[in-house]
Amino acid sequence: STKKCIKGHERNMSSGTTSACHSSEWVTLNVGGKIFTTTRSTLTQQDSTSMLARMFGDEKTVTWHSSVDESGAYLIDRSPRYFEPILNYLRHGQLVLDKDINPQGVLEEARFFGLPTLMDTLEDIIEKNQVPDDRTPIT
Amino acid sequence: STKKCIKGHERNMSSGTTSACHSSEWVTLNVGGKIFTTTRSTLTQQDSTSMLARMFGDEKTVTWHSSVDESGAYLIDRSPRYFEPILNYLRHGQLVLDKDINPQGVLEEARFFGLPTLMDTLEDIIEKNQVPDDRTPIT
Amino acid sequence: STKKCIKGHERNMSSGTTSACHSSEWVTLNVGGKIFTTTRSTLTQQDSTSMLARMFGDEKTVTWHSSVDESGAYLIDRSPRYFEPILNYLRHGQLVLDKDINPQGVLEEARFFGLPTLMDTLEDIIEKNQVPDDRTPIT
Amino acid sequence: STKKCIKGHERNMSSGTTSACHSSEWVTLNVGGKIFTTTRSTLTQQDSTSMLARMFGDEKTVTWHSSVDESGAYLIDRSPRYFEPILNYLRHGQLVLDKDINPQGVLEEARFFGLPTLMDTLEDIIEKNQVPDDRTPIT
Amino acid sequence: STKKCIKGHERNMSSGTTSACHSSEWVTLNVGGKIFTTTRSTLTQQDSTSMLARMFGDEKTVTWHSSVDESGAYLIDRSPRYFEPILNYLRHGQLVLDKDINPQGVLEEARFFGLPTLMDTLEDIIEKNQVPDDRTPIT
Repeated sequence: STKKCIKGHERNMSSGTTSACHSSEWVTLNVGGKIFTTTRSTLTQQDSTSMLARMFGDEKTVTWHSSVDESGAYLIDRSPRYFEPILNYLRHGQLVLDKDINPQGVLEEARFFGLPTLMDTLEDIIEKNQVPDDRTPIT
Repeated sequence: STKKCIKGHERNMSSGTTSACHSSEWVTLNVGGKIFTTTRSTLTQQDSTSMLARMFGDEKTVTWHSSVDESGAYLIDRSPRYFEPILNYLRHGQLVLDKDINPQGVLEEARFFGLPTLMDTLEDIIEKNQVPDDRTPIT
Repeated sequence: STKKCIKGHERNMSSGTTSACHSSEWVTLNVGGKIFTTTRSTLTQQDSTSMLARMFGDEKTVTWHSSVDESGAYLIDRSPRYFEPILNYLRHGQLVLDKDINPQGVLEEARFFGLPTLMDTLEDIIEKNQVPDDRTPIT
Repeated sequence: STKKCIKGHERNMSSGTTSACHSSEWVTLNVGGKIFTTTRSTLTQQDSTSMLARMFGDEKTVTWHSSVDESGAYLIDRSPRYFEPILNYLRHGQLVLDKDINPQGVLEEARFFGLPTLMDTLEDIIEKNQVPDDRTPIT
Repeated sequence: STKKCIKGHERNMSSGTTSACHSSEWVTLNVGGKIFTTTRSTLTQQDSTSMLARMFGDEKTVTWHSSVDESGAYLIDRSPRYFEPILNYLRHGQLVLDKDINPQGVLEEARFFGLPTLMDTLEDIIEKNQVPDDRTPIT
């Protein structure tokens, strides 16, 4: 039987395509103190101009680098809570928000990581939900 | 007295059946950076064609493999938050969702792991709850 | 002054009873990948026929055993989220549920661990809250 | 310039008082498996008769002791979730509860740790919120 | 191509400014037992008179120091839950609160860390939401 390699970016698992599974494909991120494990393909596939694509893309396209912590995880000085839906979006192309997550927090991350499509979606969500409450940010 | 082995898939604990308890039965998964501990039986019992059944089933049925991290945990590049109800479903056959969990996120995992029965249930849940709000995914 | 030993099962801390404090009293559980620290007294006091009482009771009453992980924690293949209120119940005899916890998930754990009093309470809670919504389990 | 030592109990940071900063001031608690880091001053200042004050007070007033885990953290067999607001109360004298926290759970901890002022406040909160729902504890 | 260094305080990632990336820029905080990873720039940029700016600023402006734990993380005896929005505010200048977070808890941290602008915003939020409920602090 043909062995396949699990990577988050293989949408259709019945496609039968075989891909090599190098361990260098796996990346550990330390986002604000919390560890996220993912793959280079996930970080680079949705938007080739995003900060993460420029950090983890091909040798010739990498224009950003980052420090790593003592365990080898790439250090990113951002909110782990609001990074979570960003990473899930990179995995499967869908923005999924739980009820208790403030979309404003996710928008700040989408802006930081340079994901304009996601920013537009989040701005739409915020605008439609906008009621004159007290959860609006300091301007 | 007869010693029994605790595994998550033994539904009826008063049944009195004895089963051998090999430590190779236990499996550690690193899902997106979070560690889950479970057993091979849990991962393979509900649906023999799922990705997890194909990863952790009998020698002859395993058609997928995965990298492991430095602690020996199998790496899976998916959301730990939405994997949690998937794993609980594999443990006892029930889909249980907390109020603050977006079923859309769990559906993405059910699709990735190849669990059609669970996908149908989640699609029903999403359809019935569907109101024209802003939490719908980017299409 | 008389030194006392802190254990979770001493309800009335002004009672002044002295009890020996053996370190073997402390138990570490690895429930689905999350570590819980508790005492043998907590795990055995509420219901002598529960699975946990049979795992951690007196030498002669122990009829279940479990594997341990590399840190010596007892492995239990269940949901840590829904085990939490179970363990609190064993500590002080009260069932306390936060608003965002689905009681159906806790019921599955009460059933697994063999706690009939708790099961009755949870079934009452679920029945009274039952409205024809979409959060019901797959049957 | 005068160097100051950060401790959670210094309310007024502009007061300019200087206090020695001994590392023995710092205490690590293992509450039900979760690690909390705090100071002896925090644990002893609000109520000198509480269990924590009797564990971590002056040599002559300490009348309780506890086991420690392998990392040196003091073991307490209680709920980490409901201990969190207790510890915050000891830090600044305010009871702050998030919406999803059941005050009944915090009351059980206040009772265990012997904090009568906090118990009164929590009983008031529970009484006022009391509606005939299903979240009431088993009696 | 010009390499850039990722730090949380670089708002405009297309600005093209190059900055040296010293590992001493990264700081680990142990807030009440939870680890946060961030940079000195984040901790010092929003308000030069805050406690964190005085802890992590230039050699000559540092007027506070703190103990470190065995891993080298700076010990702060405060609530990690309510510190999280404080740190995000220092990262990007916006206060973002999830629905289930009690703003009173964040206000206590803003007061402790000496962030008057944030205190004003939080007091506004609390005042506007104020209804005679039972979640008010003990006074």
